[in-house]
Amino acid sequence: MRSHTMWDNYPTIQQDLNDVLLIIESNIKIRDKTIERIIKELIYAGGKLLRPAYFLLCSQIGPQYNRDQVLSIAAALEVLHMATLVHDDVIDDAPTRRGQETIQAKLGKNYAVYTGDYLFCLCFKILARHSKDLSNIEFNSSSVERILVGELNQMSMHYNTNIDIKQYLKQISGKTAQLFSLSCYLGAEISEASLYHKRISRRIGHNMGMAFQILDDILDYTQGTKCFGKPVLNDVKQGIYSLPLIYAMKKNREAFRTLLEKGNLLTEDDLSTILSLIHKYNGIQDAQDLATKYTNKALLLIEKLPEGSYREDMLLITGSLLNRDL
Amino acid sequence: MRSHTMWDNYPTIQQDLNDVLLIIESNIKIRDKTIERIIKELIYAGGKLLRPAYFLLCSQIGPQYNRDQVLSIAAALEVLHMATLVHDDVIDDAPTRRGQETIQAKLGKNYAVYTGDYLFCLCFKILARHSKDLSNIEFNSSSVERILVGELNQMSMHYNTNIDIKQYLKQISGKTAQLFSLSCYLGAEISEASLYHKRISRRIGHNMGMAFQILDDILDYTQGTKCFGKPVLNDVKQGIYSLPLIYAMKKNREAFRTLLEKGNLLTEDDLSTILSLIHKYNGIQDAQDLATKYTNKALLLIEKLPEGSYREDMLLITGSLLNRDL
Repeated sequence: MRSHTMWDNYPTIQQDLNDVLLIIESNIKIRDKTIERIIKELIYAGGKLLRPAYFLLCSQIGPQYNRDQVLSIAAALEVLHMATLVHDDVIDDAPTRRGQETIQAKLGKNYAVYTGDYLFCLCFKILARHSKDLSNIEFNSSSVERILVGELNQMSMHYNTNIDIKQYLKQISGKTAQLFSLSCYLGAEISEASLYHKRISRRIGHNMGMAFQILDDILDYTQGTKCFGKPVLNDVKQGIYSLPLIYAMKKNREAFRTLLEKGNLLTEDDLSTILSLIHKYNGIQDAQDLATKYTNKALLLIEKLPEGSYREDMLLITGSLLNRDL
Repeated sequence: MRSHTMWDNYPTIQQDLNDVLLIIESNIKIRDKTIERIIKELIYAGGKLLRPAYFLLCSQIGPQYNRDQVLSIAAALEVLHMATLVHDDVIDDAPTRRGQETIQAKLGKNYAVYTGDYLFCLCFKILARHSKDLSNIEFNSSSVERILVGELNQMSMHYNTNIDIKQYLKQISGKTAQLFSLSCYLGAEISEASLYHKRISRRIGHNMGMAFQILDDILDYTQGTKCFGKPVLNDVKQGIYSLPLIYAMKKNREAFRTLLEKGNLLTEDDLSTILSLIHKYNGIQDAQDLATKYTNKALLLIEKLPEGSYREDMLLITGSLLNRDL
C-alpha cells in the first residue's frame, strides 16, 4: 500500500497520497471478488497519482484547509482518471497499461466497459460522500464532459495524415490538460484562494498537463516494450499521429504519405522507416522543445503563487517532468 | 418533442415527461454536432420513460412537492438509464435498439463507449445542478454501482446452460428492478413520505421492474425484427438464457444440451428447434405467469399507498404492463 517512488523525497505528499489510495480502496465494495481484485490491482499498479498530487499541492494556496475533504476530492480525481484510462484502453484495444495487462486483454472488453462505468460512479460516490459543496461536483461533471468530448474529437482524427499541430494541441488539451487544470483549480478553490491565484492554478495545470502529454506521446517513439510496457509506435499503428510525427510530416509530408496510407497494415519494417524519418526531420527534438516551453510556462506561473514549502515542492516536481526517466 | 403514446391518456404525466425531455435536451451541449445529434436522437427515439414516470408518480405520495426539483431528478434517472443502455448495446453488440440502429452499429463501439460515459456524467451534472440534497446523489451512485455489478454478474453467466431461476431473478433484479426500485423510492423520499410508504414504494418498483424485465425477455422469443426492431432469439444466440428457456430447460435439460453447446454457432434451424422446444415445455407461458405474479404483487402494494388520482394512474399503468403490445 504505497504510492510511486517519485514521492519518496516528499514525505508529506507521499503520506497524503497513501491515504488517498486508502480512501479509494475503502469505498470499493463489490460482491464479485474477481472484479474487486481487478480494480484494486488497478489502484495499486503504481500510477504516479499526479492529478491528486497537484490538487493536494494547490490546496495549500489559500488559507482554508480541511484534510478529510481535501483527501476525498483527491481520491475522486484519481478515480475519475482511472475510469477514463480503462475506457481509453477499450477504445485503443491496448494490450498493456503501466506495464500490466489491461482489463480487456485479461477479461474482455465487456468487463472493461463496466469497470470503467463502476469507476465513474465511484468518483461521484466519493465526492458525494465526502464533499460538502455541490458546486464542485457540477464543475467536475462539466469538466468530465469536456474530457470525453476531447476523446471523441481525437477519434475523428484517427488515420488523418493532415492533422496539424493546432489540432493535436486541442486534442491533448481536452484529453489530459483539462483534468490537470481542474485538479489545480479545485485545489485553489477549496483552499479559498483569491480569484487571481485560482486562475493562475488553472493555467499551471493546463501548461503542466500539456507538457506531460507531449512527453508521454514522445515515449511511444523512444521506448520499447521492455522499459515501458507498451509496444513502440503503437500509437502510429492505431492511426494516432502525435507531435513528433506531426512535426516531421510538416517538414516533408510526401515522405510519409505512402507509408501512412497503409493504415493499420503497417509492418515492423514500415514502422522502422517511419521512425528513421521522424529522427531525420528532428520530430522528437521539436516535440521535446515544445514540452519544455510548456513546462517553463508552468514554472513561471508557479512562482506567482504565494510563498510556501508547497510552492518549492511544486517547482521541483514540475521541473523534474522534463527529465522523466520511466 | 413528445413522449411515448402510452401516456396519451395521462395528460399530466405526459406534460411532465415532455418537460423532462426538455431538461435533458437543454443540458446537452457538445461542440461536435454529430455526437450531439446522436444523443438527441437517442432521447427522442420514443422510449417509454418508465423510470421517470414511476418516479413522478411516487413523488406525489408525500406532502412535499417542488416541480423543478422533481423534474430534474426524473431527467437524471432517464439519462442514467440511457447510459446503461448504450453500454449494454456495446457489450451485446446489438445492431438495433427501440427499432433504431444502435450507436456502435452506426459509428463503432468507440463512440458508443464515450457516449455512454457522457451520459453518466450528464446524469450527475443534472442532479448536481438541480437537486439540493447531496444524499440523493450518494444513494444514486450506490445504486448505479449495484446495477453495474448486476451487469457484470450477468456476463459471467453467458453461455451457462446450468443457470437456474434463482440466478436469473438475481440478475434481472440488479439489471432492471434496481433502477425502478430506486426511482420509486426517490419519488417517495423527495415528497417526504413516511418511512412505511417509502418502503412500500421501493417494493413497488422492485416488483414492477421484475415483471417488466421478464416480459421484455419473453419478447425475444415471441417477436421478430419487423415488430420490435430486434432479431428473434437474439439473446439465446449471445448466450443470454432468459426465463422462458430456463423454465423449459428445467423440464428437460437434455433436450437442449446438444443445441446450446454450439454456443454462438447456432444456425437459424437450431434456433427454430429451440423455440419449438420452449413452446413444447410451456416455457413462455410459465414465464408469463411469473410476470403476472410480480405485477399482481406490485398492484397490491400500490393499493397500500395513500389515496389519490396518482394512485389510480399507477394502478392502471402497472396493470397494462401485463398486456404489453409493442
